[in-house]
Amino acid sequence: MDVFKVKPLILDGKKVSHIVQDELKVKVASLRNKGVVPKLAIVIAGEYAPSLIYVANKERACRSVGIEVETFRFRADVEQTLVQETIERCNEDRRIHGIILQLPLPAHLDKDKLFDLVDPNKDVDGLTAVNLGRLAGGKPKFVPATPRGIVELLMRYAISPRGRRVVIVGRGELVGKPLANLLLMKGERGDATVTVCHSQTPDLKSVCLDAEILIVAAGKPGLIKGDMVAPGAVVIDAGIHRTEQGLVGDVDFNSVAKVAGAITPVPGGVGPMTVAMLLCNTIEAADGSGAGN
Amino acid sequence: MDVFKVKPLILDGKKVSHIVQDELKVKVASLRNKGVVPKLAIVIAGEYAPSLIYVANKERACRSVGIEVETFRFRADVEQTLVQETIERCNEDRRIHGIILQLPLPAHLDKDKLFDLVDPNKDVDGLTAVNLGRLAGGKPKFVPATPRGIVELLMRYAISPRGRRVVIVGRGELVGKPLANLLLMKGERGDATVTVCHSQTPDLKSVCLDAEILIVAAGKPGLIKGDMVAPGAVVIDAGIHRTEQGLVGDVDFNSVAKVAGAITPVPGGVGPMTVAMLLCNTIEAADGSGAGN
Repeated sequence: MDVFKVKPLILDGKKVSHIVQDELKVKVASLRNKGVVPKLAIVIAGEYAPSLIYVANKERACRSVGIEVETFRFRADVEQTLVQETIERCNEDRRIHGIILQLPLPAHLDKDKLFDLVDPNKDVDGLTAVNLGRLAGGKPKFVPATPRGIVELLMRYAISPRGRRVVIVGRGELVGKPLANLLLMKGERGDATVTVCHSQTPDLKSVCLDAEILIVAAGKPGLIKGDMVAPGAVVIDAGIHRTEQGLVGDVDFNSVAKVAGAITPVPGGVGPMTVAMLLCNTIEAADGSGAGN
Repeated sequence: MDVFKVKPLILDGKKVSHIVQDELKVKVASLRNKGVVPKLAIVIAGEYAPSLIYVANKERACRSVGIEVETFRFRADVEQTLVQETIERCNEDRRIHGIILQLPLPAHLDKDKLFDLVDPNKDVDGLTAVNLGRLAGGKPKFVPATPRGIVELLMRYAISPRGRRVVIVGRGELVGKPLANLLLMKGERGDATVTVCHSQTPDLKSVCLDAEILIVAAGKPGLIKGDMVAPGAVVIDAGIHRTEQGLVGDVDFNSVAKVAGAITPVPGGVGPMTVAMLLCNTIEAADGSGAGN
């Protein structure tokens, strides 16, 4: 019966991110014409391999749209004060519009203290308390890149969360919780009925089966199987894991693709959208708008 | 068959708030012995009748546990700068540990700007962006009083939200959203599977029927009827409205009490807990702990 099998719509984050980047090139050109050269500062400590790859991706994406990048690289055993001084210099440097601290930071560093130092008006990752609070308070300035990228990806495929039952698996500070706050905002990019579940949810399967849009950011490879997804549901996979079988997400793609109406691949789904939204936030910071969502 | 009707447990916020206040008296006495006199500053503008009553309640409650209160009263047409100067003086005054701005503020005032001015370490209502962000980021300092009061009331009746399906009706900045963030924290006071619904939820009844704990902060008198509540569910009503029939909540008490396993009355449920948690936050600010939840 393979002949009759309906294939799900693939939500192609890679393709959409290229479209977004083409739009951003125009914005950057216009800013440069006004004498504003958008610039991002990246702070990284240590040699954690995935972080090095992510930073290289961000540098390449920035340059491809015309954003300048300066990366401050520290040894894994860098002193707290040295990182602090760097952040303070970036805060003061008027040529720098955005500052990001590449996570994870080495364990000996006081992460909260470092984030508290970042000027909220340059916090293009949206992860300082002030910006998480602006988002939770319904008036975001910089929305964290992954949640913003997920909503952008849906909207580019004309899938509005408005009035939909959205289930988020994972309550992390980078994706799950800010995404819940984002989807609860008023307007066609929000207005969802949002459920957040996690490791303490006893009946994960039945909660997931209720979802019209299922977004997974649990950090567990292959957690979501086909029998946990309602037929026709939209499935967004924000996980990425290096395994012996290559890169995989939190969603078991093969079984879920048989029931989902639309699904993101891993890689090539949420990841590229995250990078594209970092570029958006940086350009908005340079433009002084910082409009976020 | 009235003989067999099982009555729900009444979650008596008034009684519990008195118990909490008795505990707080001991803490205040201990602080005073160390030379610290907890002090709250209340800023109010205009003569909105409910606000005047709330402020009077807060003043009385503070004094009853030994917290000093100073209320700064302004006319409804007060200039923005005058309120700002008052907040700045309170920030600088080392004898003042907590500052609250009584809501609603007159429409001509820039509410966001005023809240941004409040020292986050004196923000005992937990409503500045920094404190909303600390909560959303899983590291609260001051939890807004109503969400904290709701969780405290549940815990005093040994009803842990852990592993429970909690449905919150209402996505406001004062109750719904901070409560969702609070109930998603790790630990026995959190760990809930949280759904937030609101005016754009098409199937409110079916979502509510899924709740083991249903918390209503929608601002609509009598919105939740008995047929929207699962038998045995715990129902918390954070609404309060003055009607010709007297004070009523967002829950239609009479019909819901017939099916709920436990329910808060209005008045005498969430309201007194809110005041008690404001006292807690103020004492924690004075104690320099500001531990929040």
